Amino acid sequence: MKITTFIGSSREESNSEILADLVTKDINHTKIDLKNLSIQPIHDLRHADGGFQLVDDDYDTIINAFLESDLIIFSTPIYWYTMSGIMKNMIDRLSHAIRDERFPQFKEKIKSVDAIVVAVGGDDPKIKGLPLIQQFKYTFDFLNMRFSSYIIGEGNKPGDILQDQQAVEQANLLNKQLKKL
Amino acid sequence: MKITTFIGSSREESNSEILADLVTKDINHTKIDLKNLSIQPIHDLRHADGGFQLVDDDYDTIINAFLESDLIIFSTPIYWYTMSGIMKNMIDRLSHAIRDERFPQFKEKIKSVDAIVVAVGGDDPKIKGLPLIQQFKYTFDFLNMRFSSYIIGEGNKPGDILQDQQAVEQANLLNKQLKKL
Amino acid sequence: MKITTFIGSSREESNSEILADLVTKDINHTKIDLKNLSIQPIHDLRHADGGFQLVDDDYDTIINAFLESDLIIFSTPIYWYTMSGIMKNMIDRLSHAIRDERFPQFKEKIKSVDAIVVAVGGDDPKIKGLPLIQQFKYTFDFLNMRFSSYIIGEGNKPGDILQDQQAVEQANLLNKQLKKL
Amino acid sequence: MKITTFIGSSREESNSEILADLVTKDINHTKIDLKNLSIQPIHDLRHADGGFQLVDDDYDTIINAFLESDLIIFSTPIYWYTMSGIMKNMIDRLSHAIRDERFPQFKEKIKSVDAIVVAVGGDDPKIKGLPLIQQFKYTFDFLNMRFSSYIIGEGNKPGDILQDQQAVEQANLLNKQLKKL
Repeated sequence: MKITTFIGSSREESNSEILADLVTKDINHTKIDLKNLSIQPIHDLRHADGGFQLVDDDYDTIINAFLESDLIIFSTPIYWYTMSGIMKNMIDRLSHAIRDERFPQFKEKIKSVDAIVVAVGGDDPKIKGLPLIQQFKYTFDFLNMRFSSYIIGEGNKPGDILQDQQAVEQANLLNKQLKKL
Repeated sequence: MKITTFIGSSREESNSEILADLVTKDINHTKIDLKNLSIQPIHDLRHADGGFQLVDDDYDTIINAFLESDLIIFSTPIYWYTMSGIMKNMIDRLSHAIRDERFPQFKEKIKSVDAIVVAVGGDDPKIKGLPLIQQFKYTFDFLNMRFSSYIIGEGNKPGDILQDQQAVEQANLLNKQLKKL
Repeated sequence: MKITTFIGSSREESNSEILADLVTKDINHTKIDLKNLSIQPIHDLRHADGGFQLVDDDYDTIINAFLESDLIIFSTPIYWYTMSGIMKNMIDRLSHAIRDERFPQFKEKIKSVDAIVVAVGGDDPKIKGLPLIQQFKYTFDFLNMRFSSYIIGEGNKPGDILQDQQAVEQANLLNKQLKKL
Repeated sequence: MKITTFIGSSREESNSEILADLVTKDINHTKIDLKNLSIQPIHDLRHADGGFQLVDDDYDTIINAFLESDLIIFSTPIYWYTMSGIMKNMIDRLSHAIRDERFPQFKEKIKSVDAIVVAVGGDDPKIKGLPLIQQFKYTFDFLNMRFSSYIIGEGNKPGDILQDQQAVEQANLLNKQLKKL
């Protein structure tokens, strides 16, 4: 099984990355750190003559990761109660991807991709992070991806997440389950 | 009353802009079109030595708009069930703004700012847009801003929004109410 | 078009009833006042030998209303951020209805029924009432009913709802649209 | 620490009860099975002359449990995406309790009560049960109770819940944490 983790934090050693690392511990996987890529915001040209235009940035890296994965882990800090802006820009660009003639197989392929969300926030995330989970659900439904599970962790300062026993245990359990696949 | 509208769409004549324009029709206001500004994604340095660093982009335009307004209208298309990436990047940068020594009055000032959200989406937005409204609520609560009202409209192709009678009537009513203030 | 309104309030002249009455003003419809019926809480016997048992209460009145309607309006006060207990008991009993051999056509018939929700609450209902709307959506999806629209109004004391201009206008617009059908 | 569990299921050996039992395993606690009590739906008399009237049912059992507990566990099946009708009727009656002259200390006392929610459903509960969690949050906020944690489990047939490893582990962890208090 090919696993890709998208890291949506702007920090090094972020809590959301630490938690995602527990999920993939000792499992072969690819990690894509969005803060090191250049992903332009979407320019919505769905209804424009000519449709979407090629953008010269790291978009193809994202698309290829979707195409080559069986499982994608979306690891994001909760900034202002939803995903980080850099992860949002990546998600927004999917509007292009599902219409991109260069990747005609995209829409069909991702139907077989499973998704896991790992989100960490500092302000009551297990309540205030729930709308984010609902949005990921709607997104995966639209793409016909299977939302296999999510973990919401609590943390502010780097490393805090390791104090959230519930989140750590959930990550460890998920790790164990992934190893069996 | 000083009103600012932030336009979060990437399109010209977007449905969310049209709907926001109905709200401010014949009312003096400032419109800030985010697609014409350069707003970098946040680099979260809350816990780093030295804290946030000055970023050379159009951030000050946003901050000054917050400082000078009595009412801010957040007009955004619903992309993937939440706000557009360019609006998210703007919101994310508020984490810097509330700690920015160059704007020591920011946190206090925005407590007196009212907020209106105008969001338009194409996939069952009056249901699937609700998590977005909840996130704006949490955000305004955090900033102690008053969430005075919101309108969710439905539309895909440019101009569609004018067929959503309910949204149009809500915008017209809000316009009438704002004129009385 | 046959319209039934279920009234879920425990009060006379409740705000949620007043608002629902605006929706059906001058339109032929049937009103079922749940506080005047006896509807027992569900006894979940889905997995018990023999399945659900006949309960001697006003359940058939509810089922027949579902069977005979083209549009059902669920009018409920928002008690503790969700529907009233008497409306919940009615909804819960649908678990029996969809398995009731006495009404084999039930499941198929309700697929053609439209649903409108009219909910009025006193504590920031346009935000805190949103989970209730999401739950109705899930319910209608499960039953394959079409969730045609909803109105959330604000009010505490009897009659307050008439001060909520937005809700009143939405009700009037819906009334106009229903008259055209 | 005094712990009370309210059981909201209508079944014997329900999944939500089994999961709640794991939380309180080997811990002294009181269990109140709502299906064995008679709790009338609320009659909202907040704004009526004379206010709420005494209802001759098992209401006092509920109120005394609130008054005597340090921690209350709300264990409910997810029926139609929210709590069961019998639990809803109990919650609704709190509108009386906070105004009941026979229990003048109620409002103050419950501020020191912690709350845990244990909910089990059969239709994608970890997503579709989230509005229920949000409603409990609003309810506890209104009452100034602390929402200390929640577990959402999946199960349909009696006993299914024991297959939901994640929920079982969360319950076991919570059990360990409660034992330390």
